[in-house]
Amino acid sequence: MTEGEAKLIEQAGQALGPKVVITDQREIEPWATDWRGRVHGTSPAMLAPATTDEVVDIVRLAAEHGVALVPQGGNTGMAAGATPPADGSAILLSMRRMNRIRSISVEGRVAVAEAGVVLETLHDAAHRAGMRFPLTLGARGSCTIGGLASTNAGGTQVLKFGTMRSLVAGVEAVLPDGSVHSGLSGLKKDNRGYSLDQLLIGAEGTLGVITAVALKLVPAIAERAVAWAGVDSPTKALELLRFLEARTSSIEGFELVPQDSLDLVLKHVPGTRAPLAGKHSWHALIEATTADPVSDIAGELQRLLAAALQEGIIEDAVIAANEAQAEAFWKLRDTISEAERAEGQTRAHDISVPVADMPTFIIEAAAKVEAAFPGVVATGFGHLGDGNIHFHVRAGSHAAPEWYEAEGERITMMVDDLVTAAGGSISAEHGIGQLKRAEFARLAPPGRIHALRAIKAAIDPLGIMNPGKLIP
Amino acid sequence: MTEGEAKLIEQAGQALGPKVVITDQREIEPWATDWRGRVHGTSPAMLAPATTDEVVDIVRLAAEHGVALVPQGGNTGMAAGATPPADGSAILLSMRRMNRIRSISVEGRVAVAEAGVVLETLHDAAHRAGMRFPLTLGARGSCTIGGLASTNAGGTQVLKFGTMRSLVAGVEAVLPDGSVHSGLSGLKKDNRGYSLDQLLIGAEGTLGVITAVALKLVPAIAERAVAWAGVDSPTKALELLRFLEARTSSIEGFELVPQDSLDLVLKHVPGTRAPLAGKHSWHALIEATTADPVSDIAGELQRLLAAALQEGIIEDAVIAANEAQAEAFWKLRDTISEAERAEGQTRAHDISVPVADMPTFIIEAAAKVEAAFPGVVATGFGHLGDGNIHFHVRAGSHAAPEWYEAEGERITMMVDDLVTAAGGSISAEHGIGQLKRAEFARLAPPGRIHALRAIKAAIDPLGIMNPGKLIP
Repeated sequence: MTEGEAKLIEQAGQALGPKVVITDQREIEPWATDWRGRVHGTSPAMLAPATTDEVVDIVRLAAEHGVALVPQGGNTGMAAGATPPADGSAILLSMRRMNRIRSISVEGRVAVAEAGVVLETLHDAAHRAGMRFPLTLGARGSCTIGGLASTNAGGTQVLKFGTMRSLVAGVEAVLPDGSVHSGLSGLKKDNRGYSLDQLLIGAEGTLGVITAVALKLVPAIAERAVAWAGVDSPTKALELLRFLEARTSSIEGFELVPQDSLDLVLKHVPGTRAPLAGKHSWHALIEATTADPVSDIAGELQRLLAAALQEGIIEDAVIAANEAQAEAFWKLRDTISEAERAEGQTRAHDISVPVADMPTFIIEAAAKVEAAFPGVVATGFGHLGDGNIHFHVRAGSHAAPEWYEAEGERITMMVDDLVTAAGGSISAEHGIGQLKRAEFARLAPPGRIHALRAIKAAIDPLGIMNPGKLIP
Repeated sequence: MTEGEAKLIEQAGQALGPKVVITDQREIEPWATDWRGRVHGTSPAMLAPATTDEVVDIVRLAAEHGVALVPQGGNTGMAAGATPPADGSAILLSMRRMNRIRSISVEGRVAVAEAGVVLETLHDAAHRAGMRFPLTLGARGSCTIGGLASTNAGGTQVLKFGTMRSLVAGVEAVLPDGSVHSGLSGLKKDNRGYSLDQLLIGAEGTLGVITAVALKLVPAIAERAVAWAGVDSPTKALELLRFLEARTSSIEGFELVPQDSLDLVLKHVPGTRAPLAGKHSWHALIEATTADPVSDIAGELQRLLAAALQEGIIEDAVIAANEAQAEAFWKLRDTISEAERAEGQTRAHDISVPVADMPTFIIEAAAKVEAAFPGVVATGFGHLGDGNIHFHVRAGSHAAPEWYEAEGERITMMVDDLVTAAGGSISAEHGIGQLKRAEFARLAPPGRIHALRAIKAAIDPLGIMNPGKLIP
């Protein structure tokens, strides 16, 4: 523990009490490791403020004593951005006690939630108000609003509603100088200079601590229809998406699934079955929703898929007959990673390229990786309409345990090089955190790195906000 | 002319030639005054690069010689943000020769346009490709893509599609150190640190020169329906909007018009007539569109308005029978400012408050202003669904010519105070520029001013990018 940390812990303890200043290592430990269990940190204390004022007090003490803070929400990040360093040189700042939903306005279509509100809690509250917060993802039972904003989270409904960047109406944050940025009034239009809201979104806690977020709500879903279609290529899948989008505004989910991934799910996940009788090289999972209680969305989707079949875009399709079947279709998509883990070692890459280029990219990149690393299986699945694919490379069944770190790292560098050459991003939705920092440093243009560093130094001149993350 | 300016002009002239370096004052003069003719500047030269490389050369020379640049597009801004200072201490950087549309991808739904492309030119090009760029505003025949991005422009279709901030897929810009930020690949998802794109949008040229923009396209409109409804209050108008939005996703324009504004238009603008037979205190202009060629959007809107009438939300409504009538309805909205000018002096305020609060704000703020300044008429019209109203205060018919600057300034301060107290913005869509800088400095929280100055100094340490604008 540094001298500064000791002083901060003592003074914060006196000012804010033992509920806020936690030093029992048994309480801290579960939060000092990232949720995939790959990065282990330590911290002499975990601070758990319950109000914005308490965060201000903590940030002022941190600035005074030169102590680094690591803001953390639900600790479900994929890049270890909320995991403290191993040497104990930073203090965990848990936002989970700031868990009030301050307001929900049906008229204004906005909810104000504190940073520690769990996504599913917000979903439920919006639902009770007859509204909906449309961003969702697998970790919804644990991840928090502050973390979602700080990482510009995505998920499965980005196609229609965008990432957090599109869904945040305003941010309240404590800046490193202890001042409070208050962007919560939720203005739809505000042209008074640089958007600090947008700067804080995706900043991974390196520019300040997000304490609350105003979130855009949309009308509740009145009806949904879920369909599964077989296609012969990712190109046809994208053609299907464009065909549907040109004819209806109801498509909100569109996930690409290769036959290889479906086979793994059917093999490893109990109770799953293929939606279509025949085999198809690729599949599209389609979700259409409407807020209109009198519209026949299943009928509309059926009619459009029949037309797509007629035009030779798809090979076959089926619409879920009921909610249970709809859930079963989604389960096939949501358990791909789980099935892969059961099969063996997998190196995952959360990448994006321009949407129109993705169908070709998947095929070509998979072929190149499989040629360069004999025995591996490379494939991509996920958010085709966003140009964002989870490009996974599986070790052969006889790979040694060292495969993941040894050959795996070389595979990742090759994938990242291919993505960069295609004008894409090596982190589409998971952020940089600690895990992608070296690759980001290797591949980002010097001008960009210079600009990020300059902004970081301007807003956080003492470097107390989540050092060692994001910025190369 | 400063020594630095003389050197820049000489060296740029040698390197880039007389097409780029214009020193004939007759050519410069029209661009040295803002388009409303209120702010007059001078500049020893106007630089007109045709390529990003030429902009890089210019910015490097400006940095070398410490010369300030004032980037300018169509010169249609409302806040004099692109007008050079009166003392000739900055050089105009006209982006109008960078007017190529580099690409339009129907598959990727993205167009890449250089900064000097006129909005209407882009509209036409998208239309020819069977697509649409959905942002539009009155100055579309002159304003440019670079200016629209630099001011985060809004307009009449923000309700459905958002401001430029939502419609920009990526920005190419020359930063003050001469490096090029290349964000044009148009990725829908990219979480590699702070969004420089979002930082440059709305920065009014103070952080760099936007040279090209990747813009999101949407499917072309297959059919539109335009309706006019009479309501008894702004509250009912907002209720109508929510009623419609809960039942259809086709509403893309929703403009509030008070009877007072309609009366002025009918009085001063030839060839106009009231859409409804009776008198109503307030009116809503509604535009619904669809990309689906087989949908009956007029029928749907008619059915929904009949239901709204049934439920007592509206007093009367009419759907335009044809395109000519639809245009006539829009003309009533678009000529309000023109009619006001014909009537006398008007002090205009481009303000926003949270959407749900706007109906009450309009009524109460108008009453307060009329009470404090006897003889004036205060009212609001415009983008109710965005919480953005053009709050206009008309002088009495016997007001002296000095009214605008004398009483007018006090009125503006009162309006700005009311807006700020309501958690709103004194600049919803027009920006700060020169004209709103004093009010911004008076009303912005110190922490915000500090953060804006820090970012400005970090990215533009020499202060060569549009000094004297935006930042208090």
